[in-house]
Amino acid sequence: MKQAIGIFDSGVGGLTVFKAIRQAFPQQDLIYFGDTARVPYGPKSPNTIIEYSVQNARFLLQQGIKTLIVACNTSSSVAIPDLSKLSNIPIIGVIDPGSEIAVRSTENKKIGVIGTEGTIRSKAYSKAIKSLEPNAQVFSLACPLFVPIVEEGWQDHPIALRIVQEYLKPMKDNDIDTLVLGCTHYPLLSHVIQEYLGEKVKLVDSANAIGEYLKKLMPAEHDAKPGKDSYFVSDNEDKFATIASRILGADLSTLKRVRLYESWFVE
Amino acid sequence: MKQAIGIFDSGVGGLTVFKAIRQAFPQQDLIYFGDTARVPYGPKSPNTIIEYSVQNARFLLQQGIKTLIVACNTSSSVAIPDLSKLSNIPIIGVIDPGSEIAVRSTENKKIGVIGTEGTIRSKAYSKAIKSLEPNAQVFSLACPLFVPIVEEGWQDHPIALRIVQEYLKPMKDNDIDTLVLGCTHYPLLSHVIQEYLGEKVKLVDSANAIGEYLKKLMPAEHDAKPGKDSYFVSDNEDKFATIASRILGADLSTLKRVRLYESWFVE
Repeated sequence: MKQAIGIFDSGVGGLTVFKAIRQAFPQQDLIYFGDTARVPYGPKSPNTIIEYSVQNARFLLQQGIKTLIVACNTSSSVAIPDLSKLSNIPIIGVIDPGSEIAVRSTENKKIGVIGTEGTIRSKAYSKAIKSLEPNAQVFSLACPLFVPIVEEGWQDHPIALRIVQEYLKPMKDNDIDTLVLGCTHYPLLSHVIQEYLGEKVKLVDSANAIGEYLKKLMPAEHDAKPGKDSYFVSDNEDKFATIASRILGADLSTLKRVRLYESWFVE
Repeated sequence: MKQAIGIFDSGVGGLTVFKAIRQAFPQQDLIYFGDTARVPYGPKSPNTIIEYSVQNARFLLQQGIKTLIVACNTSSSVAIPDLSKLSNIPIIGVIDPGSEIAVRSTENKKIGVIGTEGTIRSKAYSKAIKSLEPNAQVFSLACPLFVPIVEEGWQDHPIALRIVQEYLKPMKDNDIDTLVLGCTHYPLLSHVIQEYLGEKVKLVDSANAIGEYLKKLMPAEHDAKPGKDSYFVSDNEDKFATIASRILGADLSTLKRVRLYESWFVE
């Protein structure tokens, strides 16, 4: 039986990762899960992010997958050890691929990393980059307003540039030559970020990074048929389908809502 | 047995409602629940908001409450009918109290309402205001960036004024004389909103509205002892405690984390 690659994200942003993997592996079956009922993960505690990530991974494992891709940077930065206990299949986050490209790209060894509160607090990128390049200086910064600005569709609004200037001034002052966009939403602001930081700063997009990374890891496949795409979300199917068709440049074939069975208890 | 008033919100914002009720009823026991693990509710679908609200209400009902206050505007605007099926106790949202004050305040009968996507899409304020004042013109507008701006602590930043101008220009053009701040976070931006709209526009804060409303509904009590405060959250206890002590002007006595028991299933 042909088995799929499973990909999860806290919402719709991980579709940029989905798209990169689809382009790298036209014949694989891909299954995407977006936890739109509990998005965003960025401001939440490590324990909660781990709980949600484990639930998402369990759901994908039940669908029969041979590889799990954690497209969400926040999950990737805190949940990989717990996810690895769930199964023997390869479980790959976006931190290592993005860090590798950043280290290959930098010349002055000054690397900036931007992400959600959860990603930055975890220091996951900083540790991964320094394990590859001990002489690197890593400047890390949480940019909590970037996700809502993108979700509001204001990435081309003058306010987006004002917010980019406000957050990224320390990056300019620190003379970085490479900036890791450590959140799946941020590539949608890359033109504004590039405008502010200038053309000399190389922006690293985790979606592209993971496509390249997987090509090295996975054997080339030679199936006759193109792979199937399946999508699951925990809320807002219609909104997801609209944004998804914009990101993927095509309508979704199958999209299903998944529900949580939940009840509260006091710890 | 002395029974408590239960109050829930999607996060920390409902503490402004908690504070208003504490001031109006010094002798009541109050129990607060903030669903910080799944905040925000504003962008989510009505079905998901109803599901989450029902779970929160069930938890508070298990604690023994005699009245349930829905501090969250988004929940109040879509979940009251479903919540009312859970119990015979009074279940009170913030829509009616805020609408009453808006109708009493307006002179030109042009009332603005701002809130989350969920609140505005539901038309709950518009319906409540028109049932009280059929000649009112209601101008409704979702302002999705106000919550993240407040959560980032940028309510005094020049960018806050830029965003207020961007959203509220139609309100100015429509010559409203009253604006309902239909989200518990928005009163923290009221100085900026007032600066932009001018002193003639009256701002209606749902926290103050519900304190007044409850005084009319509930009998005066004559217990000897001051009431007890209890707080429950689903995530980020420390962050909640910090913001709470700022809003309430005192440290929290008891704060407990409540966990969800969850598993996914496909519908």
